[in-house]
Amino acid sequence: MGESTIEVLERIIRSDGEIEPARAAELSELLDEPPIKDVVALVERSTATRAAVVLRLLSRRRSIAVFDALDAVHQADLIGALGNADVYGFFAELDPDDRVSLLDELPAEIADRLLRALERTERDVTGVVLGYPKGSIGRRMSPEVALIYADMTVGQALAELRRTADGLETIYTLPVIDRDRSLLGVTSLRDLFTAEASVAVAELMDKPTFANAHDDAEETARWFLPLDLLAMPVVDDSRRLVGILTVDDAQDIVESADDEDTARSGAHEPLQQPYLSTPLLKVVRSRIVWLLVLAVSALLTVQVLDTFEDTLAAAVVLSLFIPLLTGTGGNTGNQAATTVTRALALGDVRKRDVAQVAWRELRVGLTLGSLLGVLGFLGAWAVYGLPIGIVIGSTLLLVCAMSATVGGMMPIVAKGLGADPAVFSNPFISTFCDATGLIIYFLIAKSVLGI
Amino acid sequence: MGESTIEVLERIIRSDGEIEPARAAELSELLDEPPIKDVVALVERSTATRAAVVLRLLSRRRSIAVFDALDAVHQADLIGALGNADVYGFFAELDPDDRVSLLDELPAEIADRLLRALERTERDVTGVVLGYPKGSIGRRMSPEVALIYADMTVGQALAELRRTADGLETIYTLPVIDRDRSLLGVTSLRDLFTAEASVAVAELMDKPTFANAHDDAEETARWFLPLDLLAMPVVDDSRRLVGILTVDDAQDIVESADDEDTARSGAHEPLQQPYLSTPLLKVVRSRIVWLLVLAVSALLTVQVLDTFEDTLAAAVVLSLFIPLLTGTGGNTGNQAATTVTRALALGDVRKRDVAQVAWRELRVGLTLGSLLGVLGFLGAWAVYGLPIGIVIGSTLLLVCAMSATVGGMMPIVAKGLGADPAVFSNPFISTFCDATGLIIYFLIAKSVLGI
Repeated sequence: MGESTIEVLERIIRSDGEIEPARAAELSELLDEPPIKDVVALVERSTATRAAVVLRLLSRRRSIAVFDALDAVHQADLIGALGNADVYGFFAELDPDDRVSLLDELPAEIADRLLRALERTERDVTGVVLGYPKGSIGRRMSPEVALIYADMTVGQALAELRRTADGLETIYTLPVIDRDRSLLGVTSLRDLFTAEASVAVAELMDKPTFANAHDDAEETARWFLPLDLLAMPVVDDSRRLVGILTVDDAQDIVESADDEDTARSGAHEPLQQPYLSTPLLKVVRSRIVWLLVLAVSALLTVQVLDTFEDTLAAAVVLSLFIPLLTGTGGNTGNQAATTVTRALALGDVRKRDVAQVAWRELRVGLTLGSLLGVLGFLGAWAVYGLPIGIVIGSTLLLVCAMSATVGGMMPIVAKGLGADPAVFSNPFISTFCDATGLIIYFLIAKSVLGI
Repeated sequence: MGESTIEVLERIIRSDGEIEPARAAELSELLDEPPIKDVVALVERSTATRAAVVLRLLSRRRSIAVFDALDAVHQADLIGALGNADVYGFFAELDPDDRVSLLDELPAEIADRLLRALERTERDVTGVVLGYPKGSIGRRMSPEVALIYADMTVGQALAELRRTADGLETIYTLPVIDRDRSLLGVTSLRDLFTAEASVAVAELMDKPTFANAHDDAEETARWFLPLDLLAMPVVDDSRRLVGILTVDDAQDIVESADDEDTARSGAHEPLQQPYLSTPLLKVVRSRIVWLLVLAVSALLTVQVLDTFEDTLAAAVVLSLFIPLLTGTGGNTGNQAATTVTRALALGDVRKRDVAQVAWRELRVGLTLGSLLGVLGFLGAWAVYGLPIGIVIGSTLLLVCAMSATVGGMMPIVAKGLGADPAVFSNPFISTFCDATGLIIYFLIAKSVLGI
C-alpha cells in the first residue's frame, strides 16, 4: 500500500518538479499517508528539484525527519533547490554534529550565511564541534550532554534531567562527572529510573567506555558499535566531558567508510549520494581518474609482452592462456586483498601483523595453486601436449602463491604509508599480478620449451 | 596504556592456552584493567583455546559483555573450548535473538542441550524467535517487549515499566497497543518521563514506524538504520505486537550482509570470524570454489583466442594488448557493478529500474570509452603505426561501453533471478568482459588490418 502511494506521487510530481495540475489538491494528503521510510526512499530516488517540492509539501515534522535521514552530500545538493526559509528551518533543526557534516559539504559563503542565521546558543554548540579537526570523533559528537554529578542523588539527577531534557541529544546514556567536569563513570536513565530516589548516583555508576575527542572517527566508531551501547561520553585530553557520541552517528561514520572501501575496491570513488539521483557527469568523474591510472599501469603488461615478443612469435599457442593466467592471478590476489582490507578496517589485523599475514597467505596461495596447477596441467596436457601442460601447471602454482602473498600484504603496506588500504587493493593488485604473472609465465615457458 | 596491558596479556597467555607460570598471579588483576573494547580485540585475535582462558579469568560481568560482543560464528567456535558451566552461563545471559543466532551456528545436539538447560521462561521467549523463518526480521527481534496500553496514564505506564524493566531488552522505545495487543503507535521513555503523570499515553503517541516479523531481515535493517531510531515494534500479520527490533541488532544484520557483499565482490565467501583466528583450511575453503568456477569460465577466453589463432599468428603485435584491453574492460565493468550492487543493497535502485540503469551506464561507458579511446589511439599510433592505433582506439571505446552496460545490469538481473547480486558481480563480470572484449578486439583487428 505504501509502495503504491509512492508510485502515485512519483507520477504526480514530475522529475523537473512540475506538479500535474489536476492532482495538486490531493498531494498534501497523499504525502501524509506513507511511512517516513517510503518518503525518504522517494526523495533519495528524485532529482533535487523534485525532492525540494516533496519536502515543501510535507508537514513540518515529517519534512524535518526526512531531511535529517539524508546524507550530508545529498542535503547539500538540496540546499540549492530549496527556498531560504526552508533551508534555515532544516539547518536549525539538525543536531550540531549533523549540522557540521552538512557545513563541510557546502561552499564557504553559504556555510557562513547559515551559521550566522542560527540562534546564539545553537551557534555556540556548533562552534564547539567545528573546533575539532576533520576526521576526529569530536567533529561527530553532540556537545549537548546532560550534566549529572556524582554527588547527586537519583532524585536530584532525575529532576535535573527533566528540566534540561529538551536541549539534549540523549537522556538515556548519562555520563557522570565531578564538579570539575571530569568523567567518573556512566549510568543510564534506565538505572536511575528503576532506583530509589534517595540512592546516590555514584552507586549506580559503571566504569565508563569513552573516547577522546581527538581520536580518529572511523576507528572509534568501529570499536564502539560491537559493544552494543546506545552512546558513550567523549572527553578532552584532561578527561573532562565535552560531548557524547550516539549510536546513530557512529553508524553513519561506519556506513560512509564502508561505502568508500566498497567503491575503491571497485576502482572508483564513492558517489556519496543515491545512484539514480547523481548527475551523469558526476558518475563519470568518480570513475575516470581510476580508469586512467589503471590503464597507464597496464602499459606495464604491454611492456612485458613486448620483451617476450620473440617467444610469443615462436609459440603463438602461449598467447591463448594469457587472459586465463592473469585472470586467475588477479582473482587470487583480490581474494587475499579484500579479506585483509576488511580485517584492517575491523581492527582484526594491525600493521605489525604484516609478517604473520604474509606467511598465512603464502601457505593459502600454495594450497590453492597446487589444486589449480594440477587441474591446469592435466587439461593443457590433454589438449596441447605435455610441455604446455607443464608450463601452465607450474605457472598456476607460482602465480597463485605470489598473488595471494602480495594481495595480502599490499593493504597493510598501504596503511603503513598512510594511504587508504582500499585504494591500493583490488585493481592495483590485479595490474601488478598481471605483469609479474606474465614474467613468471614466459620465463617458465622459455626454459621448458627451450625457446 | 590499555594497548600495552593487552600486549603483556598476549605474552603471558600463550596461544595454546598455557599460562606463563611466574605471572599467573597477576593475571586477574591485569585483565580487570583494560577497557572492554581492548579485551574484545584480544579475544578476536586469539585462538579458541586462548580466548577461552581469557574469558574464564575475567570477572563474570566483564566476561558476559565480551562474549556478547562476539559474532555468532566466533561464539560457536568458542563453545567447544569453554567448560560446560561457562557455556550455560553465557548462553542464559544472551538476548533471545542473539541466542537464536548462536543456535543457528551450532550442531543440532549441542543446540538442543543448551536449550534444555535454559529456564522455562527464557526457553519460551527463545521459542518465539525460533518460530520465525531464517532470514526474517522476526528471527532477529526481541520478544521481551514492554506492554504499554493506550488507555493508561503516564503515571500508570511508568509504574508498569518500573515493575517489568528487568526482563525487557529496552524501555526507551515503547510501542503502544490496545487491549488486543494491536499496535497503535509508539512513544518513548523520554516523552513519558518529561510529561505530567495524569496525561493519557495516547496523547504522547507518534505514528509508528514498524516492521512485519516475516519481512526480510537485511532489507528491514537497511531502511531502519538511516531513520536514527533506537528501536521499532515488530508485528504479526494482523498487526499485533510480537517484539521489538533494536538498533544494535539491525546494525549486526547490516554488518554481516556487508561482509558478505565485500567478500563476494572479492571472489570469496565471508570468513565470519576474525581473520587471524580463522584456521588456514577454512580460509582455503572460503576461496577455492570461487577460484575454480572462475578458472573454468576463463576457459572461454582460451576458446575465443583459439578461434582467432590465425589472426594472432599473422600479427603477433595484437597479443601485446590483450591484458591491457581485458583489464580495462574488467575495471569498467567492475566500477558499474560495485556501484549498482551497493545501490541495490541500500534500496536506491530497484529491479524495475533495470532499463534506466542500462541507459545511464551505456552513456557513462561511452563517455569513459571516448576519453580512453582517444588516448589509446594516439599512443598505439605513435609506437605501432596508424592501423594498430585505430584498432586499439575503437576497441577501447566499444569495450568500455559494453562493459559498463553489462556491469550495471548484471547485479539487477542476478537479483531478478533470486541470486545474491554480489555473487554475479565483479569476478564474473571480469570474465565475461574478457571474452566479449576479445571478440570485439579481433573482429575490429581483422577488418581494419584485412587479415
